Order: sequence, then structure tokens, then C-alpha cells
Amino acid sequence: MLGNFSYCNPTKLYFGEDAISNLSSELKNYGENILLVYGGGSIKKNGIYDQVITILKDCSKKVTELSGVMSNPTLDKLYEGVKLARENNIDFILAVGGGSVVDYSKALSASVHCNEDPWEKFYLRMEDPDNKVVPIGTILTMVGTGSEMNGGAVITNTKDKLKIGKVFGENVFPKFSIMNPKVTYTLPKYQMVAGFFDIMSHILEQYFSNTDDNTSDYVMEGLLKSLIHSSLIAVKNPEDYEARSNIMWISTWALNTFVAKGKSTDWMVHMIGQQVGAYTNATHGMTLAAVSIPYYRFIMKDGLNKFKRYAINVWNVNPEGKTDEEVAKEGLDAMEEYMKKLGLVMKISELGVTEDMITDIAKSSFILPGGYRVLTTKEIETILKECM
Amino acid sequence: MLGNFSYCNPTKLYFGEDAISNLSSELKNYGENILLVYGGGSIKKNGIYDQVITILKDCSKKVTELSGVMSNPTLDKLYEGVKLARENNIDFILAVGGGSVVDYSKALSASVHCNEDPWEKFYLRMEDPDNKVVPIGTILTMVGTGSEMNGGAVITNTKDKLKIGKVFGENVFPKFSIMNPKVTYTLPKYQMVAGFFDIMSHILEQYFSNTDDNTSDYVMEGLLKSLIHSSLIAVKNPEDYEARSNIMWISTWALNTFVAKGKSTDWMVHMIGQQVGAYTNATHGMTLAAVSIPYYRFIMKDGLNKFKRYAINVWNVNPEGKTDEEVAKEGLDAMEEYMKKLGLVMKISELGVTEDMITDIAKSSFILPGGYRVLTTKEIETILKECM
Repeated sequence: MLGNFSYCNPTKLYFGEDAISNLSSELKNYGENILLVYGGGSIKKNGIYDQVITILKDCSKKVTELSGVMSNPTLDKLYEGVKLARENNIDFILAVGGGSVVDYSKALSASVHCNEDPWEKFYLRMEDPDNKVVPIGTILTMVGTGSEMNGGAVITNTKDKLKIGKVFGENVFPKFSIMNPKVTYTLPKYQMVAGFFDIMSHILEQYFSNTDDNTSDYVMEGLLKSLIHSSLIAVKNPEDYEARSNIMWISTWALNTFVAKGKSTDWMVHMIGQQVGAYTNATHGMTLAAVSIPYYRFIMKDGLNKFKRYAINVWNVNPEGKTDEEVAKEGLDAMEEYMKKLGLVMKISELGVTEDMITDIAKSSFILPGGYRVLTTKEIETILKECM
Repeated sequence: MLGNFSYCNPTKLYFGEDAISNLSSELKNYGENILLVYGGGSIKKNGIYDQVITILKDCSKKVTELSGVMSNPTLDKLYEGVKLARENNIDFILAVGGGSVVDYSKALSASVHCNEDPWEKFYLRMEDPDNKVVPIGTILTMVGTGSEMNGGAVITNTKDKLKIGKVFGENVFPKFSIMNPKVTYTLPKYQMVAGFFDIMSHILEQYFSNTDDNTSDYVMEGLLKSLIHSSLIAVKNPEDYEARSNIMWISTWALNTFVAKGKSTDWMVHMIGQQVGAYTNATHGMTLAAVSIPYYRFIMKDGLNKFKRYAINVWNVNPEGKTDEEVAKEGLDAMEEYMKKLGLVMKISELGVTEDMITDIAKSSFILPGGYRVLTTKEIETILKECM
């Protein structure tokens, strides 16, 4: 049932091959001192860097560069950014990259004018900024995280071994995001399919919750069917524009809060997968893939009606003459087959997990209460053994 | 295929039984002179008026009332509102009602500070406001139009017999909309089911277009399935909160621009239905219902693949051993059965159309090019005869 909630998402999206042509008109709305944030320099290889610099110069902007944002942006990197942004009196942050660069830029936008330690305030005390927030815009170069249209900003404190996902409010959402599907063509296949599964997991972890009748579940079934369809095309031909553009669009809508409205959410695959990542440094989407099937088989009976519905509506399982459990099981079997077709890693042992790590991974996994079953640490251990 | 487009929807939605509790905190963001806009006074019977007045007084607002907004808001009424808003130096417009009241309030918000004739500028020349726009908020009392989260504002010029739908940009979208599904319980059944079909038609007229592979089509199939499911519950029990809340939510997302992204759109059912309405003054949703099945049967062969897909994905038609045409036809038959179950009017003759009106209705119907077939006036006449 759709209970009490609010929805607001002011981010403006520019989508398509020519999306970047909107950058200069957007930049006119902001001051002249721009902080250009990016990662390891792949944008210099694929030409986006030069394109952006030319536009910034044509707009008479003063550009300060902040490069080297890593895939798990650290608190130290955040402090570095705060210092740089203050020294250069930054009016606007332009993030060019994937989810990490965008997440980092959001954390930075809230932190520049914060008088306290941003880690203490935003991440440990989970407060919202009461200071001025520097506006940000993004040019997206990878899909999966949905960071281009939400308030999520994961930061890792390496000293304290803490990785915390803060969800900021609308005032920290990107003002605009520029999304050209062609930019995603050059990603290696391993990263590409890992990203596809990250998107699928975002949808499934919101889908598998509640027992009520919710329009969001129907919408998610549509998004899943479109994703399955397009990902099977893209894995054969990564330069299929239709497939890649649909996937980019699904990725945004999977995690911009729309489909979560009126629902509780599970997120245990992310909680366990992230700890597999913490112990192996494996690619995020692959950790989710390797954990998902055993997890869903474990909780299937607790949400049997929904797993049956999933099998029928998403995987076209014919329910005739079968028990609910048989139908539900067939759905997960079909999902497993699909994942193998994509070339996803289906075992955590293949990601570097060894038997001796399992107890520690289970113990360090954060347990969330939103799904069909609240797991115990012991049960996480059982699931992890199934994932080997 | 998802081509070049932009998306932005800054309206904040407060949804649920307690949605109105957010009104006072929202009002704090705006000046003290409030124009309260409503229709024929049903909000005085159901208690919403008293509730809103109390909140406005508690917020120390100075309230000017503008009542009597009719179901097809007229240009004369718009001029009346402009005069009243100027005289009272209005800072904020609060619209309490259904689509007509909200449409009217948007037109007014753009017109108050417009130095030219707003009809000439916004409706005939289709320009956007370059003047200050008075912000508006809405308290929705009826569902169907989606006006609570878009820029649509239909105004009727009775003197020139012109009804024009202007779509304003994001600066005219409501700043917030308050949506309590329980408020919709008291609507008579005839109006209720007409509203349900208005929503369905909004989705279908965006669904039946293009031949490419578009995520929006999958999302619309989800919205349609949820709407069909919930409307069949609501028609038996109008006070089923789950059903009514889902329908209210679907109504917003059917016409807030999301599902239209990357697609062309048809809208011929609205064009023909509106002219049936112009000649009979019949309820909007019923005119759409009475026109839809003959229209879709007429264009079915032009978009056969999509009609086949519609049959399978929305109406669960089993395609085995059938031609594409048989499958597509079965889908439309299932839709017709569903419409009869809801109690919709299936013939324009029952809405007051007589044989002698048909040529004039056809001639006056605006022909749009976005669908599977660009109709001729002669073809519209043929369709209208099928609708008798």
C-alpha cells in the first residue's frame, strides 16, 4: 500500500548523443570559478576532457582541476577537495566520470562551506548540511550507480576502515546531468556486465519487499524486462545504441527514489556483496552477482508470493499445474541462466574469497530489516558458503 | 530508440492520508498574500476548505479567495483572476481542486505579471512567459489529468470557440502538490470510472507510437497492469485505499512527461474525444472511452507489432498458434470487455451524438501526426460512425 511519503527530484537530465551541447547554456546559470572533478584520466583518452575544457573556455570560466578520484573515494581525498575549493573560491563543481566521481563531488559540494568536520557531521552523525551547498553538475561516463539523479554519496574512511553511504537531500542532488550513451561503449566487457547487474540488483532489492499491492512493483517489472532484453543485446554488441541508451535510462530510474516510494527496501545483497568487496577488492557488480542467487533461494519461502509473481511476470514462467514453490524456483533458475549468459561471476570463490574469510565477512555485514526476512549472522554465513 | 531529449520535473509531491500536514511548512517559503483558488464549492461540503483556511490562518497568511473555476476554465475567468491577483498583490496561488482548478491556476500564475494579453502570448503565439511567474501549490481533490505535476494548462476562449492546451515549462509547474487518496472517495461512480479511463488513455496514447525499443513502453505496460488491477477493485469498493492510492499515483506518472521521453505520441483519441465533448458537453473520460476501441481497431494494422505486444504483455493473450492479427485483435477484445466491466460508455450516441453531427465533429477534430497512421478527416468520420 502506498503510505505517507514525499517525492521530489529536481535534477535536470540531458540525454542522447548530443547531450553535451547543453553544457554551455547550463553553465551560464553559475559563477565563473569551476572545479572540474574527474578520476584516473580515462576522459583524457576518450576526448571528453578536451571537449569539456573547450566549452569551459568558450564560457570564459576559470577552471581548477581536481583529478585522481578513486573508485572508492576516500575521506582524505574529500579533505583535499575542500581545501582546493576554498582556496579557489569555487562557485560550481563539474563532475566528469562515473558513480565514484559523482558521489565524491556531492560530498564535496556539501563540505566546502561546512565549519565542522564533514565526516563527523554528515557521515557519523548523519546530519544534513545547514551551510551553503556548492551546486554541482555531472557529465556521466559510466552507468550503474544512479548517482546522476540522487543524493547518494559513499565515502570511505581508510584510517577507521569505514565505508559509509550518506544520502543527501534535494539541495545536494546534481543540478543537471549530461548522459550520452555512446560514451559508455568503450568500457571493457567485464565492467560493462558488472554494471548491468548492479542496476538489476538495485531494482530487485527494492522489488523484494512488502506484501501489499504497489504500483512501483509493476513499474519495476517493466524496468527489469527492458533491462534483461537490452543487456542480452548489449553483451553481444556493445555498440548497439538502442540497447545502451535504454540501459543508461533504466540505471537512472532504478535508483532516483521513484520506484522506492511507498515501499520498504531490502538491500541485503548490497550489504553482503560490499563486504565481499571489502575482503577481496572485487568489482562491485560482480560481488552482487555472486551473492544474489543463493541469497534469493534462501529467502524465497519468506516472500513466496512475490517470488512467484517475479517468475511469472519477469521470466514468463508458466504456472500451470505447478506449486507456488515450483513456480518461484523456476523464476530464480531462469535468472541464474540469464546471469550466466551475460558472463557474470557466479561464485565468491572466483572473486578471491577463501573459506577462512567467510565468518569475518558474515560478521562484518550490516544487517538491514526491510526485506522478507531479517537475517542472522549465522544465516549470512550459511548463504556465503552456498556462494562458494 | 531513446534520442536526444531533456527531462526535468521539480514538483514536490506529498502523498498519503496525512499529506496535508506538510502544507504549513511549505507555505513558509512564500510571501503572505495567498490567492486561494477553487471550483464550485464541493470543498466546502467535504471539509477541505475549513481545513485549509485554518492552516492558512495559523501561518498568518492574508487570504484572497477566487472561487467558481468551471470544468473548462474560460479566458474570461482568467482575466478575472489576473485582476484580482494584481489588486491583492498576490505572492502565492494555492489551487484546491481537480485538473481544471490546477490548470487554471497555472495559466493565472504565468499571466498575473504579463504585460501583454496572455491569450495572445501563451495560447495563440504559444510563447513562454518572460515575466515573473507567481508560484503555485496544489491540493488535489480529483485524479486523472496529471496537472499536479506538469505544465499543462487548458483554457477555453468561449467567444472564439477555441479550447487550447498550453504546456508551460518547469517554472510554471506546481512547486508542490498535496495528494490524499481518501479525498477522492466521494466522487460519484460515473465520474470516477471516467477518470480511470482518462488515465488509461493518457498512457495508451503515448504507448501506441514508434516502432523502436523503448524502456518507456515497458514502464507503461507496468502502469497499465497496475491500473487495470486497481480499477477493477475500486469500481467494486471505491473506499479501498490501496486501489485508490495506486490509481492516484499512476495518474500522476501517466502524464508528468516521464513515460513520453524518447517517444513520439499519438493523442488522436483525445483530439476526437474532445470534439465529441465540444458538441455534447459529455464527461471527458467518457468521450475517450466511446472513441477508443473503434479508433484502435482502425489503426491496428498500422502498428500491428505493438498491438500484438500490448495483447500479450498487458492482457495476457496466449499467442500460440495464432496470427499476429488474431493476437492483436484478442487484446483489443479484452480491453473492450474490461471497459464494459468498469461501466464506461461505449457509444458516442449514448453521449448525445446524432448522425447529423458526425461530419462536423470529424472536420473540427485536430489531426496530429505522432501515431501509427496520420488520419484524414474522412477516416475520422468512418471511425465516428463505428462509435455510434
